[in-house]
Amino acid sequence: MSEICRPRWVERPPAGTGGGFHIRNIRVADGEFVIAAGPCAVESREQIFATAAAVKASGAVMLRGGAFKPRTSPYSFQGLGWDGVMLLAEAGRAFGLPTVSEVTNAADVPRMAAQVDVLQIGARNMQNFDLLRAVGRTESPVLLKRGFSATLEELLLAAEYILAEGNPRVILCERGIRTFETATRNTLDLSAVPVLRERTALPVFVDPSHGVGVRRWIGPLCRAAKAAGAHGLLLEVHPAPSQAKSDGQQALTFEDFARITAELARIPVFDAHQVEA
Amino acid sequence: MSEICRPRWVERPPAGTGGGFHIRNIRVADGEFVIAAGPCAVESREQIFATAAAVKASGAVMLRGGAFKPRTSPYSFQGLGWDGVMLLAEAGRAFGLPTVSEVTNAADVPRMAAQVDVLQIGARNMQNFDLLRAVGRTESPVLLKRGFSATLEELLLAAEYILAEGNPRVILCERGIRTFETATRNTLDLSAVPVLRERTALPVFVDPSHGVGVRRWIGPLCRAAKAAGAHGLLLEVHPAPSQAKSDGQQALTFEDFARITAELARIPVFDAHQVEA
Amino acid sequence: MSEICRPRWVERPPAGTGGGFHIRNIRVADGEFVIAAGPCAVESREQIFATAAAVKASGAVMLRGGAFKPRTSPYSFQGLGWDGVMLLAEAGRAFGLPTVSEVTNAADVPRMAAQVDVLQIGARNMQNFDLLRAVGRTESPVLLKRGFSATLEELLLAAEYILAEGNPRVILCERGIRTFETATRNTLDLSAVPVLRERTALPVFVDPSHGVGVRRWIGPLCRAAKAAGAHGLLLEVHPAPSQAKSDGQQALTFEDFARITAELARIPVFDAHQVEA
Amino acid sequence: MSEICRPRWVERPPAGTGGGFHIRNIRVADGEFVIAAGPCAVESREQIFATAAAVKASGAVMLRGGAFKPRTSPYSFQGLGWDGVMLLAEAGRAFGLPTVSEVTNAADVPRMAAQVDVLQIGARNMQNFDLLRAVGRTESPVLLKRGFSATLEELLLAAEYILAEGNPRVILCERGIRTFETATRNTLDLSAVPVLRERTALPVFVDPSHGVGVRRWIGPLCRAAKAAGAHGLLLEVHPAPSQAKSDGQQALTFEDFARITAELARIPVFDAHQVEA
Repeated sequence: MSEICRPRWVERPPAGTGGGFHIRNIRVADGEFVIAAGPCAVESREQIFATAAAVKASGAVMLRGGAFKPRTSPYSFQGLGWDGVMLLAEAGRAFGLPTVSEVTNAADVPRMAAQVDVLQIGARNMQNFDLLRAVGRTESPVLLKRGFSATLEELLLAAEYILAEGNPRVILCERGIRTFETATRNTLDLSAVPVLRERTALPVFVDPSHGVGVRRWIGPLCRAAKAAGAHGLLLEVHPAPSQAKSDGQQALTFEDFARITAELARIPVFDAHQVEA
Repeated sequence: MSEICRPRWVERPPAGTGGGFHIRNIRVADGEFVIAAGPCAVESREQIFATAAAVKASGAVMLRGGAFKPRTSPYSFQGLGWDGVMLLAEAGRAFGLPTVSEVTNAADVPRMAAQVDVLQIGARNMQNFDLLRAVGRTESPVLLKRGFSATLEELLLAAEYILAEGNPRVILCERGIRTFETATRNTLDLSAVPVLRERTALPVFVDPSHGVGVRRWIGPLCRAAKAAGAHGLLLEVHPAPSQAKSDGQQALTFEDFARITAELARIPVFDAHQVEA
Repeated sequence: MSEICRPRWVERPPAGTGGGFHIRNIRVADGEFVIAAGPCAVESREQIFATAAAVKASGAVMLRGGAFKPRTSPYSFQGLGWDGVMLLAEAGRAFGLPTVSEVTNAADVPRMAAQVDVLQIGARNMQNFDLLRAVGRTESPVLLKRGFSATLEELLLAAEYILAEGNPRVILCERGIRTFETATRNTLDLSAVPVLRERTALPVFVDPSHGVGVRRWIGPLCRAAKAAGAHGLLLEVHPAPSQAKSDGQQALTFEDFARITAELARIPVFDAHQVEA
Repeated sequence: MSEICRPRWVERPPAGTGGGFHIRNIRVADGEFVIAAGPCAVESREQIFATAAAVKASGAVMLRGGAFKPRTSPYSFQGLGWDGVMLLAEAGRAFGLPTVSEVTNAADVPRMAAQVDVLQIGARNMQNFDLLRAVGRTESPVLLKRGFSATLEELLLAAEYILAEGNPRVILCERGIRTFETATRNTLDLSAVPVLRERTALPVFVDPSHGVGVRRWIGPLCRAAKAAGAHGLLLEVHPAPSQAKSDGQQALTFEDFARITAELARIPVFDAHQVEA
């Protein structure tokens, strides 16, 4: 890291002292544990409203939903676009849930920032530096996902592109890295939680849905993420996963989600997140 | 897995129904959470006795200690050999702790089985099939570590070499896999816990010491492993890590270990380890 | 690859039948071997002109040079921007060399396409789908680098985004993947050459500079790439590598480059690129 | 590499000065290019004799064949054992070809050394240190395969276990590493050739059969290995790959092998293996 003189991420409140920030009425900070949930992709008004109702009833405090979906193949479902954004925003208002959605193009940032509460940068765009600078010039909180082959240092440097533009509200999100193992979609790297909590005061979320990629293994990893000291989770929930237009195999049903949040309630929030050196 | 007709690991009690077995008076099974701790290498009588006393006082129920150390370089400390085995066995008897130690050569298996309670197969030897068959012919429980680049299927097939010889008491141990990330020594793959618990009734342990490799990040991963549903932990503890002859940077002090076990006590044992498909 | 009905990359001339296309007067096709060389970043008129003269004298037929540099840290040299593009274009005209330069933002595509001959998509942007679509709407040849953690199938699907917009002139470029090995900057995956040549008629280049990352190991990998059947190379050359503003450790001197091209001349172009199934 | 004071691999003749050694009448050294070929596993007298005749006719100078096969599953074909060793030795004598076969157990080393010319250590046993020491105490040349997740430094340190016992005749063999890519069985890391040739005077072989794992892509990688500066190849050849008892999909037919050796003859041996720093 020789080329960085004084990265902004270390100029913030030292790790463990609280820090954090608000997203509307939701506090993201040490001592808190925040659950953002919703479908991979917004598919219809019925789908997003039903999901918003269900996840709110089970403890989610933010609503996620993709409208612009970066897909490996150009022939896969690409999302509803701005129509999806509007439906998400509407559902968020109806249920009093701040919203999170991915933006994929610097040109879309102002319009997206006007509609959703948190701008998500997807794993594939973690080093799309023009996009990072663009969200750095907004006043919106940003949820920055780790690239699936990015080191933690590269994640922090990607966050620095946003911070350097003047936007201090960045959430880092571990979502699994690419390894040789094929049993799971990715390998969820929960070491990221203590490592990032030591190096920065930025909040750290975990996305077990993409990290594991198989519905029935997501619950244990949600519990592990909270126990490791994550500040929050990002989870995919769908009214009928088998009919989902994208990533259905990793979407939780409403019942799955309720069971998982009940289990999570049995694990305390750990603030003393690390043993001294 | 086409080449396997009827692997023995699926002929055992179905996952979630209890299963497990005893190691002397210690039960390793669903509903239990077992901590095995001790130094990376047995270095002296004082060292192993002091460590045994400390880890027992903080909740460990098994004592680990290496005597034959597989080291990357032939010029590194290679362990005390049989003298180390005898010291470990003596400390185990003195404190009433079953012992765990690594065996690296098929020819050593009978003598090792006579002295220690659990035969450990190290990550580098996970596919040393002659050694696997040799421990399969004993009546000793075996702790089988995942190779640092082995898939979970390969781990199960390695266990099958032991089971096929007639020894049913195998503990699988996740200890981190090799990835591109360099912040940690390895990447601890906690997805292994739910995946293995679904595929087999063999107990699953986690070794965060090797998985993370940095002392101050081990505690959060211990908590995560328990929350994910592991049946136990394998941890390295040393009276004075900075003087350890091997792997000192990942050894916990007695105080670290006490703090971690206190945190672990705040997390319940999760038996309902997975959401239904 | 179930989600793709009829990808365009297989609708082209079958592998081994020639295919290919021209970039100005340069033919990129089976039976040809093309060398594109130049600095990582355009730094000054003197630098790019001296390099153009030197690489042309030693056998390069295209001139590469970055003007918009995606850098891991926001505090690293980011390139000269449009000034760099103009200097590159000027040098290309002066020496009769078609030019290659990276474009990082969909909004910049038309202006870039007006100045340089080949639009490069960097590894970090291989799945920046808005950018891929934008270059797909031009008539410029595109050099598409494999993401450092992209599978070959993902590379082909990224190319499909460009082809699907109507632009058939895409060169695929292997540039090393991220693995656990740390001796080299990346691990150059030369298997990509026969695999891609079998699956598509698109030309396949190799970039050993990024693949290896250490000057003195680049020559052997250049030879290996040609012997494996690559259609061309992309190489970084600098008048004074130790003064380079980016990636100096992997830049070849003029003398290195001359020696490597002399060695390459001793290896035939292999058209019979594969053993029959 | 701080723990190594004076590794023996750097006390040998400096890289590029020739060095090397003889295996019977075959010289393995700078300026030479040696092909060892034969079946993955010896299956019958007919099979090994037919293969020996065919590979000798096409330019192989050593005969390989496995008798003790380390297999992921205990239910896969495990080789003919000592019967296979005797058949290999007999075929080697009949055709005047030095033989190479894998030894998997320290206890088998003396008997194996009495029958075959070169003792092979397989990838899974690269860090089976008891086995390394055992072959280090013989006078037989050793072909040491890189573990599929071993760094080059770890490979050199594994060689050091053999050298430290007094056996100087070690051949290092790159055979592909485990990565996220699934198109090929492993990722053949040809960077290993220049890196190892710089760090040691030990000869460096390449095994594209395991590296690529798919018959029709092996030829291009053989050519690449020679062009990169390898001292030799290890190749799997079988009279009828579709009937092979192990690894048939990567076995070359006699015709494949003849075509590949003819192509290899068109590539010079490169001694000036690296550009100066």
